[in-house]
Amino acid sequence: MLLLRAVAGRRLPPLTQLPRGCSRLAAGSATPEGQPGATPGGQPGATPEGQPGATPGGQPGATPGGHRGAAPVLAALLGIGAVLAYGERQRRSAQAAQAPPSPPYPRYTRAEVAQHRTPRDRVWVTYGTDVFDVTEFVELHPGGPDKILLAAGGALEPFWALYAVHSQPHVLELLRDYKVGELSPEDAAVTPGDTADPFAGDPPRHPALRVNSSKPFNAEPPPELLTQSFLTPNELFFTRNHLPVPSVEPGSYRLRVEVPGGRALSLSLAELRRRFPKHEVTATLQCAGNRRSEMSRERPVKGLDWGIGAISTARWGGARLRDVLLAAGFGEKSGATEDWHVCFEGLDTDATGTPYGASIPLKRALSGEAEVLLAYEMNGQELPRDHGFPVRALVPGVVGARSVKWLRSVVVSPSESPSHWQQNDYKGFCPSVDWDSVDFRSAPAIQELPVQSAITEPRPGAAVPAGELTVKGYAWSGGGREVIRVDVSLDGGRTWREAALGPRPERGRGWAWALWELRAAAPAGTRLEIVCKAVDSSYNVQPDSVGGIWNLRGVLSNAWHRVGVTVTP
Amino acid sequence: MLLLRAVAGRRLPPLTQLPRGCSRLAAGSATPEGQPGATPGGQPGATPEGQPGATPGGQPGATPGGHRGAAPVLAALLGIGAVLAYGERQRRSAQAAQAPPSPPYPRYTRAEVAQHRTPRDRVWVTYGTDVFDVTEFVELHPGGPDKILLAAGGALEPFWALYAVHSQPHVLELLRDYKVGELSPEDAAVTPGDTADPFAGDPPRHPALRVNSSKPFNAEPPPELLTQSFLTPNELFFTRNHLPVPSVEPGSYRLRVEVPGGRALSLSLAELRRRFPKHEVTATLQCAGNRRSEMSRERPVKGLDWGIGAISTARWGGARLRDVLLAAGFGEKSGATEDWHVCFEGLDTDATGTPYGASIPLKRALSGEAEVLLAYEMNGQELPRDHGFPVRALVPGVVGARSVKWLRSVVVSPSESPSHWQQNDYKGFCPSVDWDSVDFRSAPAIQELPVQSAITEPRPGAAVPAGELTVKGYAWSGGGREVIRVDVSLDGGRTWREAALGPRPERGRGWAWALWELRAAAPAGTRLEIVCKAVDSSYNVQPDSVGGIWNLRGVLSNAWHRVGVTVTP
Repeated sequence: MLLLRAVAGRRLPPLTQLPRGCSRLAAGSATPEGQPGATPGGQPGATPEGQPGATPGGQPGATPGGHRGAAPVLAALLGIGAVLAYGERQRRSAQAAQAPPSPPYPRYTRAEVAQHRTPRDRVWVTYGTDVFDVTEFVELHPGGPDKILLAAGGALEPFWALYAVHSQPHVLELLRDYKVGELSPEDAAVTPGDTADPFAGDPPRHPALRVNSSKPFNAEPPPELLTQSFLTPNELFFTRNHLPVPSVEPGSYRLRVEVPGGRALSLSLAELRRRFPKHEVTATLQCAGNRRSEMSRERPVKGLDWGIGAISTARWGGARLRDVLLAAGFGEKSGATEDWHVCFEGLDTDATGTPYGASIPLKRALSGEAEVLLAYEMNGQELPRDHGFPVRALVPGVVGARSVKWLRSVVVSPSESPSHWQQNDYKGFCPSVDWDSVDFRSAPAIQELPVQSAITEPRPGAAVPAGELTVKGYAWSGGGREVIRVDVSLDGGRTWREAALGPRPERGRGWAWALWELRAAAPAGTRLEIVCKAVDSSYNVQPDSVGGIWNLRGVLSNAWHRVGVTVTP
Repeated sequence: MLLLRAVAGRRLPPLTQLPRGCSRLAAGSATPEGQPGATPGGQPGATPEGQPGATPGGQPGATPGGHRGAAPVLAALLGIGAVLAYGERQRRSAQAAQAPPSPPYPRYTRAEVAQHRTPRDRVWVTYGTDVFDVTEFVELHPGGPDKILLAAGGALEPFWALYAVHSQPHVLELLRDYKVGELSPEDAAVTPGDTADPFAGDPPRHPALRVNSSKPFNAEPPPELLTQSFLTPNELFFTRNHLPVPSVEPGSYRLRVEVPGGRALSLSLAELRRRFPKHEVTATLQCAGNRRSEMSRERPVKGLDWGIGAISTARWGGARLRDVLLAAGFGEKSGATEDWHVCFEGLDTDATGTPYGASIPLKRALSGEAEVLLAYEMNGQELPRDHGFPVRALVPGVVGARSVKWLRSVVVSPSESPSHWQQNDYKGFCPSVDWDSVDFRSAPAIQELPVQSAITEPRPGAAVPAGELTVKGYAWSGGGREVIRVDVSLDGGRTWREAALGPRPERGRGWAWALWELRAAAPAGTRLEIVCKAVDSSYNVQPDSVGGIWNLRGVLSNAWHRVGVTVTP
């Protein structure tokens, strides 16, 4: 179903206009035939030795050809009649196709494979220990060429793990025909980390993430994967680490909870799970710096150069913070705490031992409506290490910086967190304020975020085919204010039309984004300036331009999002 | 104090550059002298008969001169030394001044007085039954010429009633010197209303209000009075009536309250006051159509042509709606009411007997934080008839349309109010939606409003003196989101500076506006495009321009506010 829908949303080129390279695709019969000895995903030791003379990107004879197995996929997509006609046509033209390499295959290192990332350099990928040249398949990839290119030069597994559509026999069969080599056995060994490096213990990450900083690790999913699904897969969820990822032994983990007039609690992970009802909430988290790169194009700012992907959505499970505070004794004895705060500290620390910290107003923590969690689950799994294993705060509708990860303490306090990140960061200022004049005390710490939206497809500068254009994106607002409308313009903001909002699992709760789509005519040879802007349930809107919201830290970048494309003649 | 502050904020022209006409102002001695027989505010019968031949604006001999009594005011303002020197200079030049008219004074009708509204036609005002020509005082008015001109052609009392600074003996003495006539006795009689007119029973209104529609009555205070005080005087509070003002006999008034699973209540005004604790909240109300005139300049819209004054602030007192719903039996027996509503109906009805109605989400009504009232007090007085006497809903942070006036029923219901104003009005749409394509069901009813701000001084097109310019305005946001910053630009939005926010009586509650002020250099001979924009506690901002938010009903007009002025050379 997913596969079919992905293709339905994508206009395949007319069969008579397929690129020449595609002629190999259906060169075999409609029945796939395996090649003995070339088991995809096979054990390294089971493959023959490498050929010393086989340099990457080298010999003409290594160019793959005669790929079989595409026909069944196309059959599923286009209907069997069309494929038979297509197969017949291709079978005839395939008579000129070159023969594929045969075993024993040449051996390549991962570094060599990594040099093949573009159609010009050939597009290579690995699966198990096999190396494939999928250059000719790129344009035919049912999910679109952009998506398959995300894996170019590396392993397919991390992507296939996310998109179950690939777990079908005919996909492996299709792939088999593109095999051009095998990985050198030593490449299975893990490179030992530098033990002096505080980041040496960081977990492995998904290769699709766009890394803005590796130490600490800060990365976002590419736009075209961002809106692929309503819930962002954990592996692709944007990661905003301020410090090295702490290694936490779940058995000895303790969360300290302190409330005024109460007794301090020290909760094990098991106690947190057992003593409090599990509450689940689907919520989007966004970094205050999302879309900072657009702000820095206006004037330079200090901060990581985030694109539009410092935002993701998950279903979170955990104990309600409210329940935990009440269990710790919060109540009438706590006194007048009207303007108090809940301070979180993480187990992640800098070189001096200072932890990451942040706070939220106590009112929000105690509100049943606000659904603040001490979360230990993310999309039905335990929290990944990069996202706060074993427990993080999860504050729906609020800037990600307050959803403190690797939580070690929760303290109700008359003051906001004294942390640098609460006091001297994550605040907005007038565009005239610079690093000489800034007074961080003059602005409130960002909590709820303003309404936001961005275009994830097409990509900026893309050449899109004439005909019907599909524009996709996300929209979200802070404070539980649900997105009620997204307007899209194709003429730079002169005229607008309303996008279709995708289904949302929990209407009315308003913590999660809306994915949206607009289909519109793209006349041949034109240039389109696509713009989007969202409206939330308080009818707040995004500002037209970045100039009026520019600030020295480059936070709160939520101007209309603009993507220019050309329509091919 | 108020007077002094008002003057301190206003730069008086240098004494040597006073206009010629001002020479009469301090012509008398520094000790005021009353003129016997010309008692200001005297009884109509106590004044001598009018002179038949005295036409308004007519005879040269009627031009007032020799006004005395300004010096004490100026002494208070400028310090006695400056005034003595000024008085001396003026005493000499006053030798050429014309003599004032003496009793018996000419008689004028109110219609005749009303023709004198500008310095060119002379500026006349009345106080009691006396008529004054204050043309020469206009430029010297401590509150600024704009303010005194609001009363031009009419009575001073409604304005003086609002600004207690005028209730001082020297003010009356000052005025006495400008007397030029008396009102004709028959003008005390009230014009009888047309009894067939459903609006005949509407109450009298303050003449300073700018009337956008008289039947039903819709009017706003002029910008320069809007930000004169944090709480808007009841008489100047913007009025948005959809229907004729009902006449309610407070003794027989009953409010019906219905909740599911509860017993219907029928509360008298006395019961509402007695049975429930009085709760007070300072809250700003704004019409959804505030600033519609800017939207209609972009493209025509349907609706009253509001300026920037369809917004006002008062301190409201009444019973909490929550308390009343609980008293009516709302509770566990009411069942699953998560997404229910509270529907209000007014006593104001159209020709078919259909009342005004609106609703708010039940969640808001039940929330202690939201402070929704059944209000019977406005700025410490009983509600004025135009504002819902004897009881209105008061929903802080929400569009004024939901604060139903002349409340007759409060019903908890699974559906929103079926009223026209809830279903087919007060909703926002994409700019492309027109009256042919609009589907009112496609948009949610406006509840919380987006962040807003506007410039109240200087006025658009004004010529301001070179030197220091003071820009004033208001800023507010819906949903209790406090305004945290107002940015002001003098160059059309290229560069910005931060305005000073005035004191707010209840920080953190966020229901009321912030008044703000910016002082900046205004170089001689320049043209300034003043722009303001506000930021609320969720860091929501206003859109740059009206194009992207334009909608067929002209609601939600909250683009950057722009006022162009020229600086005199």
